[in-house]
Amino acid sequence: MYKRCVTISGDRYLYFYSEEPQEGKAGEERCEPKQTEPRSELRWHPILRQWVINATHRQDRTYKPPAEFCPLCPTQPGAFPTEVPEPDYEIVVFQNRFPALSGTAPRLPGQAPEGSELYAVEPGQGECEVVLYSSQHDGVLWELGLPRIRSLIEVWIDRFEELGARPEVQYVLIFENRGDAVGVTLHHPHGQIYALPFIPPIPERELESAKAHHAAHGRCLFCDVMEEEKKDGRRIVFENDHFTAFVPFFARYPYEVHLMPKRHVETIAGLTAEERQAMAEGMQQVVWRYDSLWNKPMSYMMIMHQAPTDGGAHPYTHFHVEFYPLNRTETKLKHLAGCESGAGTFVTDMAPEEQAEHLQNVKLKEARK
Amino acid sequence: MYKRCVTISGDRYLYFYSEEPQEGKAGEERCEPKQTEPRSELRWHPILRQWVINATHRQDRTYKPPAEFCPLCPTQPGAFPTEVPEPDYEIVVFQNRFPALSGTAPRLPGQAPEGSELYAVEPGQGECEVVLYSSQHDGVLWELGLPRIRSLIEVWIDRFEELGARPEVQYVLIFENRGDAVGVTLHHPHGQIYALPFIPPIPERELESAKAHHAAHGRCLFCDVMEEEKKDGRRIVFENDHFTAFVPFFARYPYEVHLMPKRHVETIAGLTAEERQAMAEGMQQVVWRYDSLWNKPMSYMMIMHQAPTDGGAHPYTHFHVEFYPLNRTETKLKHLAGCESGAGTFVTDMAPEEQAEHLQNVKLKEARK
Repeated sequence: MYKRCVTISGDRYLYFYSEEPQEGKAGEERCEPKQTEPRSELRWHPILRQWVINATHRQDRTYKPPAEFCPLCPTQPGAFPTEVPEPDYEIVVFQNRFPALSGTAPRLPGQAPEGSELYAVEPGQGECEVVLYSSQHDGVLWELGLPRIRSLIEVWIDRFEELGARPEVQYVLIFENRGDAVGVTLHHPHGQIYALPFIPPIPERELESAKAHHAAHGRCLFCDVMEEEKKDGRRIVFENDHFTAFVPFFARYPYEVHLMPKRHVETIAGLTAEERQAMAEGMQQVVWRYDSLWNKPMSYMMIMHQAPTDGGAHPYTHFHVEFYPLNRTETKLKHLAGCESGAGTFVTDMAPEEQAEHLQNVKLKEARK
Repeated sequence: MYKRCVTISGDRYLYFYSEEPQEGKAGEERCEPKQTEPRSELRWHPILRQWVINATHRQDRTYKPPAEFCPLCPTQPGAFPTEVPEPDYEIVVFQNRFPALSGTAPRLPGQAPEGSELYAVEPGQGECEVVLYSSQHDGVLWELGLPRIRSLIEVWIDRFEELGARPEVQYVLIFENRGDAVGVTLHHPHGQIYALPFIPPIPERELESAKAHHAAHGRCLFCDVMEEEKKDGRRIVFENDHFTAFVPFFARYPYEVHLMPKRHVETIAGLTAEERQAMAEGMQQVVWRYDSLWNKPMSYMMIMHQAPTDGGAHPYTHFHVEFYPLNRTETKLKHLAGCESGAGTFVTDMAPEEQAEHLQNVKLKEARK
């Protein structure tokens, strides 16, 4: 991939990624983020022992503009300016206008933390990026085709490496929110990246589980999960030489799918060229099956899990992608209500084996021309 | 409170609770639950180390019937039968027709668990009850008045004690889901109780935090949180002699409120008569303020946190009620999207101090006659 960096709205960076060199166009190969003061704060939750990001400037962020004013479309000559200041693009990454995390604020030696002992406060430093999958406003991941998904994987790897190398970033969270049910405010096909100054609770829990499993059994927890899924076989939705997609035995969301490399690899950056191609096919298959189930775009969250970038060794992590749809039927949503949100326990309505069967047998819809 | 038990649809119990004795009416003082096989299973999530309740019979449960067919209204003579087989009631508790947990299945000595070592399976034993706050279909908690809320507290205590005494029940989760945004399928005013055969992840995490805090400081974590809130003062929404309601410094949900007894008490059953009255007032105030904010019923989850009923000692727990609304503005919802659901980290849009100010200054709406 080739990349070129420009500055938008005076102080944010935007990268154009492309298959071919972008000769004769203005821009740098790389932009250093302008050192800005974090605009949000982290507050410590002493009961759940986790950071809460309090980003008050986000309350008035752009909320579902009509399609003709989509800020993620390219800027057409003579038309109103969007976030992307050129008339076309392949893949674009830019700093979020309303970032939950931003800037860097290294603590000086001996400087005391803010807040009290019980109520600690830290600056909300880090980075929030938006990843545009296509310039086409109504584009859909699986329809974009394998070469584009393969390119997206290269972009994610590039972002993972660049953001993960920053000293304040301990975890690079690559994710996508899709559909009204997930609360998506902009429908142009895009994902997000949060570069966090801490390891968030769910990846942290995973890490601890993987470590404990390795200590007890001398094996990788995720490799063992795949082995168990393979032995049973009923919940495997798709596989190729290098990746497996399955509804896990322990699924919490309806039609939850985990897409996992068969080889033990800690981060997306560790995948070989062949594995990256296989991952592109796996991602396409999962979303294609979702959208074919009821012949409409499925609302889902997609989250990549991998090793932290905190400088430590994490040999027990195993890179994978988790998909959490929210529809338990074509018309009914799964809500995270009292039992899930209040107690942390998920109640599911459909056997994972049945969910997998639906996804195995679905007739794949045809791509639009 | 007086109570009387009848059997509905052949095998479920239903309790009528009332202020006055219910003389001359059919029923027992207490029903033993019929020993039934659990209809769901618990599956172990080896990566997050938590139980997932897989209750496949719930997929076809009653979904937002029109008001004239509300199954929670009393049964009128000559009309279709609802869940409550009498023409009026004060407070009713009955076994859920579509329980996530049900029955008991004690493991025989030496009996091996089902599933594999990695993928453990247990029967989904326990109890799921529905608590009807009023026979009035469009009733609202704060409008029902203090005596009714006070009675509800007695009913919750009775259920907590009865369910908590069962040997298989380790945690009694008293909660309420309210409003479309939380996915509520029946709008008649009601709450729920899940009697769980395990301590769920969030209360478990709280317990561990409270224990660690006590070990380090020799004090109750929740008492210290209240002390800190009192010292700052800006986030206290309401208080009386025995209870404080505050938007915690570390709020994760918009307008999140914790309602806590000032005295250290482990469970709802430990409250004195005066404290129960004070709690009724606190609950009324919180929901009244919510509904007055935009002059419409607020969608929220209400969850009671207290000591497990697993037979162990839990001196570090401190009973309290947490309210999680979902509206961040009158028209915009907070969605638990990629960062919250996928990573476990909450991003909030409004400072807790500002949220508290809105709730402090709101003009309480008048009750309907």
